[in-house]
Amino acid sequence: MSFRRALALAACGLAGGSVLFSAVAVGKQPARGGDAAEPRPGGSAATAAARPAGTGGYWDSNWDRREPLALINLKKKNEETGEEELASRLDHCKAKATRHIFLIRHSQYNLDGRADKDRTLTPLGREQAELTGHRLASLGLKFDQIIHSSMTRATETTEIISKHLPGVKKISTDLLREGAPIEPDPPVSHWKPEAVYYEDGARIEAAFRNFIHRADAKQEEDSYEIFVCHANVIRYIVCRALQFPPEGWLRMSLNNGSITHLVIRPNGRVALRTLGDTGFMPPDKITRT
Amino acid sequence: MSFRRALALAACGLAGGSVLFSAVAVGKQPARGGDAAEPRPGGSAATAAARPAGTGGYWDSNWDRREPLALINLKKKNEETGEEELASRLDHCKAKATRHIFLIRHSQYNLDGRADKDRTLTPLGREQAELTGHRLASLGLKFDQIIHSSMTRATETTEIISKHLPGVKKISTDLLREGAPIEPDPPVSHWKPEAVYYEDGARIEAAFRNFIHRADAKQEEDSYEIFVCHANVIRYIVCRALQFPPEGWLRMSLNNGSITHLVIRPNGRVALRTLGDTGFMPPDKITRT
Repeated sequence: MSFRRALALAACGLAGGSVLFSAVAVGKQPARGGDAAEPRPGGSAATAAARPAGTGGYWDSNWDRREPLALINLKKKNEETGEEELASRLDHCKAKATRHIFLIRHSQYNLDGRADKDRTLTPLGREQAELTGHRLASLGLKFDQIIHSSMTRATETTEIISKHLPGVKKISTDLLREGAPIEPDPPVSHWKPEAVYYEDGARIEAAFRNFIHRADAKQEEDSYEIFVCHANVIRYIVCRALQFPPEGWLRMSLNNGSITHLVIRPNGRVALRTLGDTGFMPPDKITRT
Repeated sequence: MSFRRALALAACGLAGGSVLFSAVAVGKQPARGGDAAEPRPGGSAATAAARPAGTGGYWDSNWDRREPLALINLKKKNEETGEEELASRLDHCKAKATRHIFLIRHSQYNLDGRADKDRTLTPLGREQAELTGHRLASLGLKFDQIIHSSMTRATETTEIISKHLPGVKKISTDLLREGAPIEPDPPVSHWKPEAVYYEDGARIEAAFRNFIHRADAKQEEDSYEIFVCHANVIRYIVCRALQFPPEGWLRMSLNNGSITHLVIRPNGRVALRTLGDTGFMPPDKITRT
Protein backbone atom coordinates (compact mmCIF):
# COMPACT_ATOMS: atom_id res chain seq x y z
CA MET A 1 0.00 0.00 0.00
CA SER A 2 2.82 2.36 0.88
CA PHE A 3 4.44 1.66 -2.51
CA ARG A 4 1.16 2.31 -4.29
CA ARG A 5 0.82 5.52 -2.35
CA ALA A 6 4.34 6.64 -3.22
CA LEU A 7 3.50 5.99 -6.86
CA ALA A 8 0.30 8.02 -6.58
CA LEU A 9 2.19 10.90 -5.04
CA ALA A 10 4.84 10.73 -7.74
CA ALA A 11 2.10 10.78 -10.38
CA CYS A 12 0.78 13.97 -8.81
CA GLY A 13 4.12 15.67 -9.34
CA LEU A 14 5.56 15.60 -5.85
CA ALA A 15 9.29 16.15 -6.19
CA GLY A 16 11.46 13.68 -4.36
CA GLY A 17 9.14 12.27 -1.76
CA SER A 18 10.72 14.05 1.19
CA VAL A 19 7.30 14.79 2.64
CA LEU A 20 6.29 11.16 2.65
CA PHE A 21 9.40 10.16 4.51
CA SER A 22 9.86 13.22 6.69
CA ALA A 23 10.91 12.67 10.29
CA VAL A 24 8.28 11.58 12.79
CA ALA A 25 7.71 14.47 15.12
CA VAL A 26 4.34 13.68 16.61
CA GLY A 27 3.76 14.93 20.09
CA LYS A 28 6.53 17.48 20.02
CA GLN A 29 5.40 20.91 21.05
CA PRO A 30 6.02 23.61 18.46
CA ALA A 31 6.49 27.17 19.64
CA ARG A 32 3.16 28.79 18.76
CA GLY A 33 4.67 32.24 18.44
CA GLY A 34 3.78 33.79 15.11
CA ASP A 35 1.56 30.90 14.06
CA ALA A 36 -1.62 32.79 14.81
CA ALA A 37 -0.77 35.33 12.15
CA GLU A 38 -0.03 32.69 9.52
CA PRO A 39 -2.60 31.75 6.91
CA ARG A 40 -4.72 28.65 7.66
CA PRO A 41 -3.34 25.37 6.37
CA GLY A 42 -4.38 23.79 3.14
CA GLY A 43 -1.27 25.48 1.89
CA SER A 44 2.14 24.08 1.22
CA ALA A 45 3.51 20.82 2.52
CA ALA A 46 6.42 22.76 3.97
CA THR A 47 4.13 24.78 6.22
CA ALA A 48 2.31 21.69 7.37
CA ALA A 49 5.57 19.91 8.14
CA ALA A 50 6.61 22.76 10.41
CA ARG A 51 3.48 22.31 12.49
CA PRO A 52 3.00 18.63 13.23
CA ALA A 53 -0.59 17.51 13.76
CA GLY A 54 -1.86 16.79 17.24
CA THR A 55 0.16 19.39 19.05
CA GLY A 56 -2.33 22.18 19.53
CA GLY A 57 -5.92 23.10 19.02
CA TYR A 58 -5.67 23.75 15.30
CA TRP A 59 -6.46 21.36 12.46
CA ASP A 60 -3.79 20.54 9.88
CA SER A 61 -5.74 19.94 6.67
CA ASN A 62 -2.69 18.30 5.11
CA TRP A 63 -2.28 15.81 7.96
CA ASP A 64 -2.17 12.82 5.60
CA ARG A 65 -0.04 14.60 2.97
CA ARG A 66 -2.83 14.22 0.44
CA GLU A 67 -4.14 17.77 0.28
CA PRO A 68 -4.30 18.35 -3.49
CA LEU A 69 -2.76 21.82 -3.33
CA ALA A 70 0.20 20.38 -1.46
CA LEU A 71 0.67 17.66 -4.04
CA ILE A 72 1.36 19.97 -6.96
CA ASN A 73 3.75 22.86 -7.25
CA LEU A 74 1.16 25.61 -7.43
CA LYS A 75 3.19 28.73 -8.24
CA LYS A 76 5.44 27.15 -10.82
CA LYS A 77 2.70 25.37 -12.72
CA ASN A 78 0.51 28.44 -12.64
CA GLU A 79 3.05 30.47 -14.61
CA GLU A 80 3.82 27.70 -17.04
CA THR A 81 0.42 26.33 -17.86
CA GLY A 82 -2.34 28.69 -16.82
CA GLU A 83 -5.32 28.06 -14.62
CA GLU A 84 -7.37 25.61 -16.62
CA GLU A 85 -4.71 22.95 -16.73
CA LEU A 86 -4.01 23.51 -13.04
CA ALA A 87 -7.64 22.86 -12.18
CA SER A 88 -7.57 19.60 -14.08
CA ARG A 89 -4.31 18.62 -12.37
CA LEU A 90 -5.87 19.42 -9.01
CA ASP A 91 -8.94 17.36 -9.85
CA HIS A 92 -6.68 14.45 -10.64
CA CYS A 93 -5.33 14.56 -7.06
CA LYS A 94 -8.63 15.21 -5.29
CA ALA A 95 -10.30 12.48 -3.27
CA LYS A 96 -13.96 11.95 -4.18
CA ALA A 97 -15.05 9.23 -1.77
CA THR A 98 -15.48 8.88 1.98
CA ARG A 99 -13.68 6.15 3.90
CA HIS A 100 -15.42 4.47 6.84
CA ILE A 101 -12.83 2.85 9.09
CA PHE A 102 -14.06 0.28 11.61
CA LEU A 103 -11.39 -0.49 14.21
CA ILE A 104 -12.15 -3.69 16.09
CA ARG A 105 -10.31 -4.71 19.22
CA HIS A 106 -9.63 -8.49 19.32
CA SER A 107 -11.76 -10.36 21.82
CA GLN A 108 -10.74 -11.94 25.14
CA TYR A 109 -7.71 -14.24 25.04
CA ASN A 110 -5.67 -16.53 27.23
CA LEU A 111 -3.28 -14.22 29.08
CA ASP A 112 -1.27 -17.17 30.44
CA GLY A 113 0.11 -18.16 27.06
CA ARG A 114 3.85 -17.49 26.88
CA ALA A 115 4.32 -17.15 23.15
CA ASP A 116 1.92 -15.33 20.85
CA LYS A 117 0.71 -18.63 19.35
CA ASP A 118 -0.42 -19.79 22.82
CA ARG A 119 -2.40 -16.63 23.43
CA THR A 120 -5.55 -17.94 21.82
CA LEU A 121 -9.10 -16.74 22.35
CA THR A 122 -10.98 -17.95 25.44
CA PRO A 123 -14.45 -19.48 25.01
CA LEU A 124 -15.91 -16.09 26.04
CA GLY A 125 -13.57 -14.42 23.55
CA ARG A 126 -14.93 -16.61 20.77
CA GLU A 127 -18.46 -15.70 21.83
CA GLN A 128 -17.59 -11.99 21.80
CA ALA A 129 -16.17 -12.28 18.29
CA GLU A 130 -19.43 -13.90 17.13
CA LEU A 131 -21.36 -10.97 18.62
CA THR A 132 -19.07 -8.43 16.94
CA GLY A 133 -19.31 -10.24 13.60
CA HIS A 134 -23.08 -10.40 13.89
CA ARG A 135 -23.30 -6.69 14.69
CA LEU A 136 -21.05 -5.71 11.78
CA ALA A 137 -23.12 -7.84 9.40
CA SER A 138 -26.36 -6.30 10.69
CA LEU A 139 -25.18 -2.81 9.71
CA GLY A 140 -26.00 -3.66 6.10
CA LEU A 141 -22.81 -2.13 4.71
CA LYS A 142 -20.80 -3.38 1.76
CA PHE A 143 -17.49 -4.01 3.50
CA ASP A 144 -14.47 -3.86 1.20
CA GLN A 145 -11.85 -5.71 3.23
CA ILE A 146 -10.71 -6.84 6.65
CA ILE A 147 -7.12 -5.92 7.44
CA HIS A 148 -5.93 -7.59 10.61
CA SER A 149 -2.89 -7.79 12.86
CA SER A 150 -0.91 -10.98 12.34
CA MET A 151 -1.00 -11.78 16.08
CA THR A 152 -2.91 -14.91 17.07
CA ARG A 153 -5.72 -13.22 19.03
CA ALA A 154 -6.41 -10.77 16.19
CA THR A 155 -6.24 -13.48 13.54
CA GLU A 156 -8.64 -15.72 15.48
CA THR A 157 -11.04 -12.82 16.06
CA THR A 158 -10.91 -12.09 12.32
CA GLU A 159 -11.68 -15.71 11.40
CA ILE A 160 -14.86 -15.62 13.48
CA ILE A 161 -15.97 -12.15 12.33
CA SER A 162 -15.27 -13.18 8.76
CA LYS A 163 -17.84 -16.00 8.91
CA HIS A 164 -20.49 -13.29 9.27
CA LEU A 165 -19.13 -11.35 6.28
CA PRO A 166 -18.77 -13.93 3.53
CA GLY A 167 -16.78 -12.86 0.50
CA VAL A 168 -14.96 -10.01 2.23
CA LYS A 169 -11.24 -10.50 1.69
CA LYS A 170 -8.86 -10.75 4.66
CA ILE A 171 -5.36 -9.30 4.69
CA SER A 172 -2.84 -9.94 7.47
CA THR A 173 -0.23 -7.33 8.37
CA ASP A 174 2.59 -7.07 10.88
CA LEU A 175 2.21 -3.29 11.02
CA LEU A 176 -0.91 -3.59 13.18
CA ARG A 177 0.60 -5.88 15.86
CA GLU A 178 0.27 -4.77 19.49
CA GLY A 179 2.96 -2.61 20.99
CA ALA A 180 3.76 0.52 22.96
CA PRO A 181 3.12 3.43 20.57
CA ILE A 182 4.44 6.37 22.59
CA GLU A 183 5.17 7.03 26.26
CA PRO A 184 1.80 7.91 27.75
CA ASP A 185 1.01 11.04 29.73
CA PRO A 186 0.02 10.76 32.54
CA PRO A 187 2.77 8.15 32.89
CA VAL A 188 2.26 4.63 34.16
CA SER A 189 4.89 3.88 36.77
CA HIS A 190 4.78 0.09 36.41
CA TRP A 191 5.37 0.07 32.67
CA LYS A 192 8.21 2.00 31.10
CA PRO A 193 9.45 0.06 28.09
CA GLU A 194 11.48 2.90 26.64
CA ALA A 195 13.34 0.62 24.25
CA VAL A 196 9.98 -0.82 23.20
CA TYR A 197 8.51 2.61 22.44
CA TYR A 198 11.54 3.22 20.24
CA GLU A 199 10.77 0.29 17.94
CA ASP A 200 7.00 -0.10 18.30
CA GLY A 201 6.39 3.63 18.08
CA ALA A 202 7.82 3.95 14.59
CA ARG A 203 5.99 0.81 13.43
CA ILE A 204 2.60 1.89 14.77
CA GLU A 205 3.10 5.37 13.32
CA ALA A 206 3.85 3.62 10.02
CA ALA A 207 0.57 1.70 10.36
CA PHE A 208 -1.25 4.99 10.89
CA ARG A 209 0.33 6.61 7.83
CA ASN A 210 -0.28 3.59 5.62
CA PHE A 211 -3.87 2.86 6.52
CA ILE A 212 -5.43 6.07 7.84
CA HIS A 213 -5.72 8.78 5.20
CA ARG A 214 -8.36 10.24 2.89
CA ALA A 215 -9.39 8.09 -0.07
CA ASP A 216 -7.20 7.68 -3.13
CA ALA A 217 -8.25 10.05 -5.92
CA LYS A 218 -9.16 7.04 -8.05
CA GLN A 219 -11.57 5.62 -5.44
CA GLU A 220 -15.03 6.27 -6.88
CA GLU A 221 -17.32 4.95 -4.15
CA ASP A 222 -17.39 5.27 -0.37
CA SER A 223 -15.57 2.42 1.32
CA TYR A 224 -16.21 0.45 4.50
CA GLU A 225 -13.03 -1.13 5.83
CA ILE A 226 -12.51 -3.25 8.92
CA PHE A 227 -9.24 -3.30 10.87
CA VAL A 228 -8.98 -5.98 13.56
CA CYS A 229 -6.14 -5.13 15.89
CA HIS A 230 -5.27 -4.06 19.42
CA ALA A 231 -6.16 -1.58 22.16
CA ASN A 232 -2.93 0.42 22.06
CA VAL A 233 -2.85 0.55 18.28
CA ILE A 234 -6.48 1.68 18.07
CA ARG A 235 -6.12 4.33 20.76
CA TYR A 236 -2.99 5.74 19.12
CA ILE A 237 -4.71 5.78 15.72
CA VAL A 238 -7.72 7.63 17.16
CA CYS A 239 -5.50 10.31 18.74
CA ARG A 240 -3.50 10.75 15.53
CA ALA A 241 -6.56 10.78 13.27
CA LEU A 242 -8.34 13.39 15.40
CA GLN A 243 -5.08 15.36 15.78
CA PHE A 244 -5.28 15.02 19.55
CA PRO A 245 -2.00 14.66 21.47
CA PRO A 246 -0.89 11.06 20.90
CA GLU A 247 0.58 10.89 24.43
CA GLY A 248 -3.06 10.87 25.56
CA TRP A 249 -3.78 7.40 24.14
CA LEU A 250 -4.03 5.81 27.60
CA ARG A 251 -6.82 8.23 28.54
CA MET A 252 -9.10 5.93 26.58
CA SER A 253 -9.98 2.36 27.34
CA LEU A 254 -11.43 -0.28 24.98
CA ASN A 255 -13.56 -3.33 25.61
CA ASN A 256 -12.74 -6.62 23.88
CA GLY A 257 -14.53 -6.95 20.57
CA SER A 258 -15.51 -3.28 20.58
CA ILE A 259 -16.18 -1.24 17.46
CA THR A 260 -14.58 2.17 16.90
CA HIS A 261 -15.80 4.03 13.83
CA LEU A 262 -13.81 6.78 12.09
CA VAL A 263 -15.04 8.63 9.02
CA ILE A 264 -12.58 10.34 6.67
CA ARG A 265 -14.15 12.77 4.20
CA PRO A 266 -12.72 13.57 0.76
CA ASN A 267 -11.54 16.97 2.08
CA GLY A 268 -9.56 15.20 4.80
CA ARG A 269 -11.88 16.03 7.69
CA VAL A 270 -12.15 13.24 10.22
CA ALA A 271 -14.96 12.36 12.63
CA LEU A 272 -15.06 9.77 15.38
CA ARG A 273 -18.58 8.33 15.29
CA THR A 274 -18.14 5.91 18.16
CA LEU A 275 -15.28 4.72 20.36
CA GLY A 276 -15.32 1.25 21.87
CA ASP A 277 -18.95 0.42 21.17
CA THR A 278 -19.98 -2.89 22.79
CA GLY A 279 -23.63 -2.01 23.30
CA PHE A 280 -24.49 -5.04 21.19
CA MET A 281 -23.09 -7.39 23.86
CA PRO A 282 -25.04 -8.45 26.94
CA PRO A 283 -23.36 -6.63 29.88
CA ASP A 284 -22.18 -9.91 31.42
CA LYS A 285 -20.18 -10.74 28.26
CA ILE A 286 -18.17 -7.51 28.36
CA THR A 287 -14.48 -7.67 29.30
CA ARG A 288 -11.51 -5.36 28.99
CA THR A 289 -8.52 -7.69 29.35
CA MET B 1 -23.08 22.22 43.75
CA SER B 2 -20.60 24.99 43.05
CA PHE B 3 -21.42 26.53 46.43
CA ARG B 4 -20.92 23.19 48.19
CA ARG B 5 -17.67 22.80 46.35
CA ALA B 6 -16.49 26.27 47.35
CA LEU B 7 -17.30 25.35 50.95
CA ALA B 8 -15.35 22.12 50.64
CA LEU B 9 -12.36 23.99 49.27
CA ALA B 10 -12.58 26.58 52.04
CA ALA B 11 -12.68 23.75 54.60
CA CYS B 12 -9.48 22.42 53.10
CA GLY B 13 -7.74 25.71 53.84
CA LEU B 14 -7.66 27.27 50.38
CA ALA B 15 -7.06 30.95 50.85
CA GLY B 16 -9.39 33.22 48.95
CA GLY B 17 -10.70 31.01 46.20
CA SER B 18 -8.76 32.63 43.41
CA VAL B 19 -8.00 29.22 41.91
CA LEU B 20 -11.65 28.30 41.69
CA PHE B 21 -12.52 31.48 39.89
CA SER B 22 -9.37 31.92 37.85
CA ALA B 23 -9.75 33.07 34.26
CA VAL B 24 -10.84 30.55 31.67
CA ALA B 25 -7.92 29.97 29.35
CA VAL B 26 -8.74 26.66 27.76
CA GLY B 27 -7.37 26.11 24.32
CA LYS B 28 -4.77 28.84 24.54
CA GLN B 29 -1.34 27.68 23.54
CA PRO B 30 1.31 28.16 26.23
CA ALA B 31 4.92 28.60 25.17
CA ARG B 32 6.41 25.22 26.00
CA GLY B 33 9.90 26.64 26.54
CA GLY B 34 11.34 25.58 29.87
CA ASP B 35 8.38 23.36 30.76
CA ALA B 36 10.20 20.17 29.94
CA ALA B 37 12.73 20.89 32.67
CA GLU B 38 10.05 21.55 35.25
CA PRO B 39 8.96 18.90 37.74
CA ARG B 40 5.84 16.92 36.84
CA PRO B 41 2.53 18.36 38.05
CA GLY B 42 0.79 17.31 41.22
CA GLY B 43 2.47 20.36 42.63
CA SER B 44 1.15 23.79 43.37
CA ALA B 45 -2.01 25.29 42.02
CA ALA B 46 0.04 28.18 40.72
CA THR B 47 2.07 25.89 38.46
CA ALA B 48 -1.06 24.23 37.16
CA ALA B 49 -2.71 27.56 36.45
CA ALA B 50 0.24 28.59 34.30
CA ARG B 51 -0.24 25.53 32.10
CA PRO B 52 -3.91 25.18 31.24
CA ALA B 53 -5.16 21.67 30.59
CA GLY B 54 -5.84 20.55 27.06
CA THR B 55 -3.15 22.56 25.39
CA GLY B 56 -0.39 20.02 24.92
CA GLY B 57 0.45 16.42 25.38
CA TYR B 58 1.00 16.57 29.11
CA TRP B 59 -1.47 15.73 31.85
CA ASP B 60 -2.34 18.33 34.47
CA SER B 61 -3.06 16.32 37.62
CA ASN B 62 -4.72 19.34 39.20
CA TRP B 63 -7.12 19.86 36.29
CA ASP B 64 -10.17 19.93 38.56
CA ARG B 65 -8.44 21.99 41.28
CA ARG B 66 -8.94 19.13 43.72
CA GLU B 67 -5.39 17.78 43.96
CA PRO B 68 -4.94 17.53 47.75
CA LEU B 69 -1.45 19.02 47.74
CA ALA B 70 -2.81 22.05 45.89
CA LEU B 71 -5.62 22.48 48.39
CA ILE B 72 -3.41 23.08 51.41
CA ASN B 73 -0.54 25.48 51.81
CA LEU B 74 2.18 22.88 52.03
CA LYS B 75 5.26 24.89 52.98
CA LYS B 76 3.57 27.08 55.53
CA LYS B 77 1.74 24.30 57.31
CA ASN B 78 4.79 22.06 57.25
CA GLU B 79 6.79 24.54 59.33
CA GLU B 80 3.98 25.23 61.74
CA THR B 81 2.58 21.81 62.42
CA GLY B 82 4.98 19.06 61.37
CA GLU B 83 4.39 16.15 59.07
CA GLU B 84 1.89 14.05 60.98
CA GLU B 85 -0.75 16.70 61.08
CA LEU B 86 -0.08 17.51 57.45
CA ALA B 87 -0.75 13.91 56.48
CA SER B 88 -4.06 13.95 58.27
CA ARG B 89 -4.97 17.26 56.61
CA LEU B 90 -4.07 15.78 53.24
CA ASP B 91 -6.20 12.72 53.94
CA HIS B 92 -9.09 15.00 54.71
CA CYS B 93 -8.86 16.43 51.18
CA LYS B 94 -8.19 13.18 49.33
CA ALA B 95 -10.86 11.58 47.18
CA LYS B 96 -11.47 7.90 47.96
CA ALA B 97 -14.13 6.92 45.46
CA THR B 98 -14.38 6.58 41.69
CA ARG B 99 -17.02 8.47 39.74
CA HIS B 100 -18.64 6.86 36.70
CA ILE B 101 -20.16 9.51 34.48
CA PHE B 102 -22.67 8.39 31.84
CA LEU B 103 -23.33 11.14 29.31
CA ILE B 104 -26.47 10.48 27.31
CA ARG B 105 -27.39 12.44 24.21
CA HIS B 106 -31.14 13.16 24.01
CA SER B 107 -32.98 11.12 21.42
CA GLN B 108 -34.44 12.24 18.08
CA TYR B 109 -36.72 15.30 18.20
CA ASN B 110 -38.91 17.42 16.01
CA LEU B 111 -36.53 19.85 14.28
CA ASP B 112 -39.42 21.91 12.89
CA GLY B 113 -40.50 23.22 16.28
CA ARG B 114 -39.78 26.94 16.57
CA ALA B 115 -39.54 27.29 20.33
CA ASP B 116 -37.82 24.81 22.62
CA LYS B 117 -41.17 23.62 23.99
CA ASP B 118 -42.25 22.59 20.47
CA ARG B 119 -39.09 20.59 19.88
CA THR B 120 -40.48 17.43 21.38
CA LEU B 121 -39.32 13.86 20.77
CA THR B 122 -40.45 12.10 17.61
CA PRO B 123 -42.03 8.63 17.90
CA LEU B 124 -38.64 7.16 16.92
CA GLY B 125 -37.00 9.39 19.53
CA ARG B 126 -39.30 7.99 22.21
CA GLU B 127 -38.40 4.49 21.07
CA GLN B 128 -34.67 5.31 21.22
CA ALA B 129 -35.05 6.63 24.77
CA GLU B 130 -36.74 3.37 25.78
CA LEU B 131 -33.80 1.43 24.34
CA THR B 132 -31.28 3.66 26.15
CA GLY B 133 -33.17 3.34 29.43
CA HIS B 134 -33.38 -0.43 29.02
CA ARG B 135 -29.66 -0.68 28.32
CA LEU B 136 -28.72 1.49 31.32
CA ALA B 137 -30.96 -0.62 33.58
CA SER B 138 -29.42 -3.84 32.24
CA LEU B 139 -25.95 -2.73 33.36
CA GLY B 140 -26.93 -3.65 36.92
CA LEU B 141 -25.40 -0.51 38.44
CA LYS B 142 -26.72 1.44 41.41
CA PHE B 143 -27.23 4.80 39.74
CA ASP B 144 -27.11 7.76 42.11
CA GLN B 145 -28.87 10.44 40.12
CA ILE B 146 -29.90 11.69 36.71
CA ILE B 147 -28.92 15.29 36.04
CA HIS B 148 -30.47 16.60 32.85
CA SER B 149 -30.56 19.69 30.69
CA SER B 150 -33.73 21.70 31.18
CA MET B 151 -34.42 21.72 27.41
CA THR B 152 -37.56 19.89 26.28
CA ARG B 153 -35.85 17.11 24.30
CA ALA B 154 -33.48 16.30 27.19
CA THR B 155 -36.26 16.44 29.77
CA GLU B 156 -38.48 14.12 27.69
CA THR B 157 -35.60 11.70 27.12
CA THR B 158 -34.97 11.73 30.88
CA GLU B 159 -38.63 10.97 31.68
CA ILE B 160 -38.51 7.84 29.51
CA ILE B 161 -35.09 6.66 30.74
CA SER B 162 -36.23 7.29 34.30
CA LYS B 163 -39.06 4.75 33.98
CA HIS B 164 -36.37 2.07 33.64
CA LEU B 165 -34.51 3.32 36.70
CA PRO B 166 -37.19 3.64 39.39
CA GLY B 167 -36.13 5.54 42.50
CA VAL B 168 -33.22 7.37 40.89
CA LYS B 169 -33.70 11.08 41.52
CA LYS B 170 -33.83 13.53 38.61
CA ILE B 171 -32.34 17.02 38.73
CA SER B 172 -32.88 19.62 36.01
CA THR B 173 -30.21 22.22 35.27
CA ASP B 174 -29.84 25.10 32.84
CA LEU B 175 -26.05 24.67 32.80
CA LEU B 176 -26.33 21.61 30.54
CA ARG B 177 -28.53 23.23 27.85
CA GLU B 178 -27.31 22.99 24.25
CA GLY B 179 -25.07 25.70 22.89
CA ALA B 180 -21.87 26.51 21.03
CA PRO B 181 -19.05 25.77 23.47
CA ILE B 182 -16.03 27.11 21.59
CA GLU B 183 -15.25 27.94 17.97
CA PRO B 184 -14.36 24.60 16.40
CA ASP B 185 -11.18 23.83 14.50
CA PRO B 186 -11.38 22.93 11.66
CA PRO B 187 -13.93 25.72 11.31
CA VAL B 188 -17.43 25.32 9.92
CA SER B 189 -18.05 28.02 7.37
CA HIS B 190 -21.85 27.96 7.58
CA TRP B 191 -21.99 28.43 11.33
CA LYS B 192 -20.08 31.20 13.05
CA PRO B 193 -22.10 32.38 16.01
CA GLU B 194 -19.30 34.34 17.64
CA ALA B 195 -21.60 36.13 20.04
CA VAL B 196 -23.12 32.76 20.93
CA TYR B 197 -19.74 31.22 21.74
CA TYR B 198 -19.15 34.17 24.05
CA GLU B 199 -22.16 33.37 26.23
CA ASP B 200 -22.59 29.63 25.75
CA GLY B 201 -18.88 28.94 26.07
CA ALA B 202 -18.66 30.29 29.61
CA ARG B 203 -21.83 28.47 30.63
CA ILE B 204 -20.76 25.09 29.20
CA GLU B 205 -17.31 25.50 30.78
CA ALA B 206 -19.15 26.18 34.05
CA ALA B 207 -21.11 22.94 33.56
CA PHE B 208 -17.83 21.10 33.08
CA ARG B 209 -16.27 22.58 36.22
CA ASN B 210 -19.37 21.94 38.32
CA PHE B 211 -20.13 18.38 37.30
CA ILE B 212 -16.89 16.83 36.04
CA HIS B 213 -14.25 16.43 38.74
CA ARG B 214 -12.90 13.71 41.01
CA ALA B 215 -15.15 12.63 43.87
CA ASP B 216 -15.62 14.75 46.97
CA ALA B 217 -13.35 13.58 49.81
CA LYS B 218 -16.44 12.67 51.81
CA GLN B 219 -17.81 10.34 49.10
CA GLU B 220 -17.24 6.83 50.47
CA GLU B 221 -18.52 4.64 47.63
CA ASP B 222 -18.09 4.67 43.87
CA SER B 223 -20.86 6.57 42.16
CA TYR B 224 -22.74 6.04 38.90
CA GLU B 225 -24.23 9.27 37.62
CA ILE B 226 -26.25 9.91 34.49
CA PHE B 227 -26.22 13.24 32.63
CA VAL B 228 -28.81 13.60 29.87
CA CYS B 229 -27.85 16.49 27.65
CA HIS B 230 -26.67 17.44 24.17
CA ALA B 231 -24.13 16.59 21.49
CA ASN B 232 -22.08 19.80 21.72
CA VAL B 233 -22.06 19.78 25.51
CA ILE B 234 -20.98 16.12 25.66
CA ARG B 235 -18.25 16.53 23.05
CA TYR B 236 -16.86 19.58 24.80
CA ILE B 237 -16.93 17.78 28.17
CA VAL B 238 -15.08 14.78 26.70
CA CYS B 239 -12.32 17.02 25.26
CA ARG B 240 -11.95 18.92 28.53
CA ALA B 241 -12.01 15.80 30.72
CA LEU B 242 -9.36 14.04 28.61
CA GLN B 243 -7.35 17.28 28.40
CA PHE B 244 -7.58 17.19 24.62
CA PRO B 245 -7.84 20.55 22.78
CA PRO B 246 -11.45 21.68 23.26
CA GLU B 247 -11.49 23.24 19.77
CA GLY B 248 -11.53 19.64 18.54
CA TRP B 249 -15.04 18.94 19.83
CA LEU B 250 -16.54 18.80 16.31
CA ARG B 251 -14.12 16.00 15.38
CA MET B 252 -16.51 13.70 17.19
CA SER B 253 -20.08 12.89 16.31
CA LEU B 254 -22.79 11.41 18.55
CA ASN B 255 -25.86 9.35 17.77
CA ASN B 256 -29.18 10.15 19.44
CA GLY B 257 -29.64 8.28 22.70
CA SER B 258 -25.98 7.24 22.75
CA ILE B 259 -24.04 6.45 25.91
CA THR B 260 -20.63 8.00 26.61
CA HIS B 261 -18.87 6.67 29.70
CA LEU B 262 -16.15 8.57 31.56
CA VAL B 263 -14.41 7.22 34.66
CA ILE B 264 -12.73 9.61 37.13
CA ARG B 265 -10.41 7.94 39.62
CA PRO B 266 -9.67 9.28 43.13
CA ASN B 267 -6.23 10.43 41.94
CA GLY B 268 -7.90 12.51 39.22
CA ARG B 269 -7.00 10.27 36.30
CA VAL B 270 -9.72 10.09 33.68
CA ALA B 271 -10.57 7.37 31.17
CA LEU B 272 -13.07 7.38 28.34
CA ARG B 273 -14.57 3.87 28.28
CA THR B 274 -16.89 4.43 25.36
CA LEU B 275 -17.98 7.37 23.22
CA GLY B 276 -21.40 7.41 21.60
CA ASP B 277 -22.31 3.77 22.17
CA THR B 278 -25.57 2.84 20.44
CA GLY B 279 -24.73 -0.81 19.85
CA PHE B 280 -27.84 -1.68 21.85
CA MET B 281 -30.09 -0.18 19.15
CA PRO B 282 -31.09 -2.02 15.98
CA PRO B 283 -29.16 -0.30 13.16
CA ASP B 284 -32.38 0.96 11.55
CA LYS B 285 -33.28 2.89 14.73
CA ILE B 286 -30.03 4.86 14.80
CA THR B 287 -30.11 8.58 13.95
CA ARG B 288 -27.78 11.51 14.39
CA THR B 289 -30.07 14.53 14.06
